[in-house]
Order: sequence, then C-alpha cells, then structure tokens
Amino acid sequence: MVSPRGFSNLLSSARFAVRSASSGANLEKTTVAQFDLSAYMVDKAHLVNAALDRAAPLRYPERLHESMRYSLLGPGKRVRPTLALASCELVGGDQAAAIPVACALEMLHAMSLINDDLPCMDNDDFRRGRPSNHRAFGEDTAVLAGIALHALAFEHVAAATAGVPAERVLRAIAELGAAVGPEGLVAGQIVDIESEGKAVGLDVLEYIHLHKTGRLLEAAAACGAIVGGGTDAEVERVRRYARHVGLLFQVVDDVLDVTKTSEELGKTAGKDVASGKTTYPKLMGLDKTRAFAEELVRKAEKELHGFDGAMATPLRHLARYIADREN
Amino acid sequence: MVSPRGFSNLLSSARFAVRSASSGANLEKTTVAQFDLSAYMVDKAHLVNAALDRAAPLRYPERLHESMRYSLLGPGKRVRPTLALASCELVGGDQAAAIPVACALEMLHAMSLINDDLPCMDNDDFRRGRPSNHRAFGEDTAVLAGIALHALAFEHVAAATAGVPAERVLRAIAELGAAVGPEGLVAGQIVDIESEGKAVGLDVLEYIHLHKTGRLLEAAAACGAIVGGGTDAEVERVRRYARHVGLLFQVVDDVLDVTKTSEELGKTAGKDVASGKTTYPKLMGLDKTRAFAEELVRKAEKELHGFDGAMATPLRHLARYIADREN
Repeated sequence: MVSPRGFSNLLSSARFAVRSASSGANLEKTTVAQFDLSAYMVDKAHLVNAALDRAAPLRYPERLHESMRYSLLGPGKRVRPTLALASCELVGGDQAAAIPVACALEMLHAMSLINDDLPCMDNDDFRRGRPSNHRAFGEDTAVLAGIALHALAFEHVAAATAGVPAERVLRAIAELGAAVGPEGLVAGQIVDIESEGKAVGLDVLEYIHLHKTGRLLEAAAACGAIVGGGTDAEVERVRRYARHVGLLFQVVDDVLDVTKTSEELGKTAGKDVASGKTTYPKLMGLDKTRAFAEELVRKAEKELHGFDGAMATPLRHLARYIADREN
Repeated sequence: MVSPRGFSNLLSSARFAVRSASSGANLEKTTVAQFDLSAYMVDKAHLVNAALDRAAPLRYPERLHESMRYSLLGPGKRVRPTLALASCELVGGDQAAAIPVACALEMLHAMSLINDDLPCMDNDDFRRGRPSNHRAFGEDTAVLAGIALHALAFEHVAAATAGVPAERVLRAIAELGAAVGPEGLVAGQIVDIESEGKAVGLDVLEYIHLHKTGRLLEAAAACGAIVGGGTDAEVERVRRYARHVGLLFQVVDDVLDVTKTSEELGKTAGKDVASGKTTYPKLMGLDKTRAFAEELVRKAEKELHGFDGAMATPLRHLARYIADREN
C-alpha cells in the first residue's frame, strides 16, 4: 500500500507563510492579509497537545502508555483537531466543547499511522523523522498501543465532553466510528491495497482519497460543528468543505510530484511516476488537474459563505494555502 | 503471550448439561433444576447472531467485509452478548435495548481475537477449528478488519440503540472504551507479555486475568444493566458478579489443567506445567485453589441476591456451571 503523504505534515513550519491574499481577489483582501494562519495553527496545536497529554497520562502499565504517547504526542500539526475546533467556532460554539472530540481525532489518526507502518502494511521504519512505533517498541506493543488509542478515543469523547447535550455527543461518536470503520478510512485502505500495481480509473482514485484521508477530515469538521451546536445544514456544509479540502490536498500533491524538483519539495520528486502509482495528472493531464484543483478550492470556499466572516477566515485560509502551496 | 483459553468456548454444546441443582443446596432447588441453561444460551446466541448479521452486512469493499464477518459470525457461544442481555433483563429492562451493546461486545471480542492470533502476537494459525483471520485473508486485511470491527462497535451502539436515554448510551460507550483501552483488556495483554517466562506473584496473575478476560465481561454485565435502566448500585453489583465469574473461569481452568487427562478435557492437559506458566495451583496449591473457586462462586451468587429470582436464574446457573464444569 502506498502511504498517504502526511496531510499533517503539509504545514512545514519553516516555509509556512500566508500567501492567500495574492490569490483571493475579493473584498476581504485586507482581512485575509492580516490573518496569520501559521500562528493560528500553532495556537490550536498547543491547546490540543496539552489536552492530549492530560487525556493519555503515563500510567501503569508504563510500556503501553509510553508507546501510545510516543505516537500521540510526537511531531505533527494537529490538522484534524484544529479543523474540529475551527468548525465548532464557525457555527458559534465554544471550542472547549470540541476539545475531547479533537483529542479523539488525533488518537484515531495516531492509531491509523501506527498500523500503516506495520511490517504487514507499508513496512515503514520511520515516521516523521523518528523510528516508527513498532521499531521503537516492538510490533506486539505497537499493535496493542493502536488498539488502546482507538478505544480511548471513544471513551474520551463519551466521558470527557462537557456542556454538550448527550444526543449531540452520540452523533459525534457515530460520525467518528463511521469515518474509521468498514465504509470509512479502512475501506479506502483496502481498496488502495487491492489497486496496487493495477491501472485504476478516476472513480477508484477518488474513492481511495475520499475514504483514506477524506473521511477523517470530514468527521473532524462535522464533529466540531455538531458539538458546537450547528444546524444539520451547517454540519453538512462544513463536511463538504472538508471533503473538498481533503481531495484538494491529494490533487495538489500529485501536481507537485511532477512539477517540482526533490530540492523544492524537500522529499523525492517524481516518486509517483517511478512507482507506477495512478495520479490525477496521469489520468487527466496536468492542465486539467490544475483546473480541478481550482474548482475544488472554489467549492470549498463556497461552502463557507453565509457563515460569520471572522469565524470562517481560518478555514478559508487553509483551503487557499493548500491550493497554492509549493511543497 | 499465552492465549486465554477461549471463555466463549467453555460451553461446549456436546457436554453441556445442567448440573447446577446438585451443587446448590437452597430453597430454589426445583426452579434451578427446571432451568435449561443450554437452551437459554442457544436462544440468546440466535438472537445475537441475527443482529450481528444485520449490523455488519456484506458490502463494498467485499474483501474487508468478508474478513470482518468471518471472525464476527464464526462459531462461538456469544457469552459476552448474552451476559449483556441477561443483565439488562435482570434490572427489569427490555433486552431489545441491549441488542446494539451486545453486538458491540462481540465485535470488540472478535477484534481482540484477530489481533491475538497475529504473527507478532500469539502467531496462531487456527481459531475455533478454522484458519485464523490472517491465515484466511492475509495479515494486512486481518489488521484492517480488526480496526473496522473496533470502530463499528462504537458507531453501532451510538447509532442503533433505540428507546434508551442518550445519557445512558454515553455511559455504556465509556464502559466499552475503558474495558478495551489502556487500563482494560490491552493492559492485561501487555502485562501478560511482559510476564512471559518470569515468576510472577498472585497479584500480577490476578491483574492479568481481571484485565485480559475480566474487563470485557464486566463491561458486558455493566452495559446491559445501564441500558436496561439499572440503578448505580445495581450496575455495580452485576459488574462485581461478572468480575467474580471471569476470575472463576480462569481458576477452574487452572485446576482442570492439572487434574484431568487430555481425553477428559478435549484438549492437551498439563500444558501450563509444561510451558512454565504461572497458575493458581502453582502459587497456592490445589486445595486452596479449589477453595478459592468456591469462594468466587459464592461471591458471584451473593451479588445476585435481591434481584428478581426468575431474572437472576440464568446468571446464577452460569456461575455454578463454570464452577462445576469438568472440561
């Protein structure tokens, strides 16, 4: 299985700069230019990291907890938790309501990365510049840490969410379960495995992306809006926003792989062509892929119309940043 | 790691007979003698199997769903789901309220068995007389099926439980998460792994049993009582009942290993001594172990006092059956 190119790592801090204003020719240019997406992301990540540290403290049996914390608290931009907090605030909620859901999203993400790296999956010895969990703790402990993070995610949302009607918390739990389960992330992974070395069409490529990386991003946005008290229509709008942004990330990734040098990317360029991987440029050509990316960012931005401008700013910036990124 | 000797398989149907009356010298002797535990268990298992079939239908991607259904719907006595249904009825609830929780318990149990059998864990090629999941579907698919069952368990409880106040459903979800997570089943497994080949004391032996097999049985009983509308005191009583019964099963298992022949057991006798495994007879001698088993069954029965006699009958029988079983 080809590993997703870490969505969480896209916001490489060194090159992180707000370039959105140059692309978005609209009346909010000034506001947009003044907003510092990098600082916003760092702020939210700090908040989430402190909550994660409290949610998964070092306890007996220590080895298990160390292994969980190694993957949970390691480097990462906390994109999914931040999306949940931003969506909660977008619909007028207090972000405190979304902190447990935000933590659960990162736990589920960490679980999926531990499993992705296993010898029977991608067999990766390294993750984010450090030994992968099974290389650091052994394969048996890594498997158990994955299960523990998975279970803790649901327990944490159910037990730690405060000030939110129980019906809403249940809806968020159902969202999280569906995003990971047999018609979610895992479905995308198995279709990816089954497609390896085969010529696949646009429908299968999109299915893999929408499930493997898209579903958890969708759930992040939807859960944030649900616990924040959004209407059904609002929840569906942020869900569609996240779906477009998730796909956009993959499409831009495919473009960068063929248009940039390894030096510019900070990782090996041309890997997709070399590995025979099916990509958007391969299926629809570079021009049409670029046009598709623009269409996705427009669709994502459109879903934010009608929400409070200030609260929508971070999400509008995130979409534009992903579209315009050069590595 | 030494595999638990399938709690679900204890009720081997061929030898399943109600012997409880001979041991329980009390006023309810007649009622007890008339109760058919075997038929009760078969009835509940049928109900649960039909619900599991509906909860995890065969869908795209088929291979993933086939792998999930292979472990979920395979042979087994559905002990945990039955415990949930019986506890729900014990506190006066309608068992329909506990069906989703019962399904979730079996999904979590199936997930733990898939993972137990993996090459990096017990490396078992067979489970319940059939190839283990990773032998039948490949290790990558088995790992993904485990994750899918895990996520589906929580989604299912959150989305499918009907006619139960949302607060209770949330409590049940927190129970299930805690039973599997870093201070539950997984904690027991890692301590078991760490204890391999070491001389451990009674405290560690009990920790392993209470977590590795006990916590999910406790959660089964507690969740059934919670969704059935039991009081806090009632929930704690059925939880303690399940804890005693779970430990009782392990203690009796240790006794049978040293007192019965392989022929009588239907499996290799003397395995514990041969493998150097720490057991109760090894630590406290055979007589004290037998006395401990009797103490556990008395404690389990005591927790059922005060509940409606007819509704407590199945659980009283189950405890006595486990104590008196000879294989």
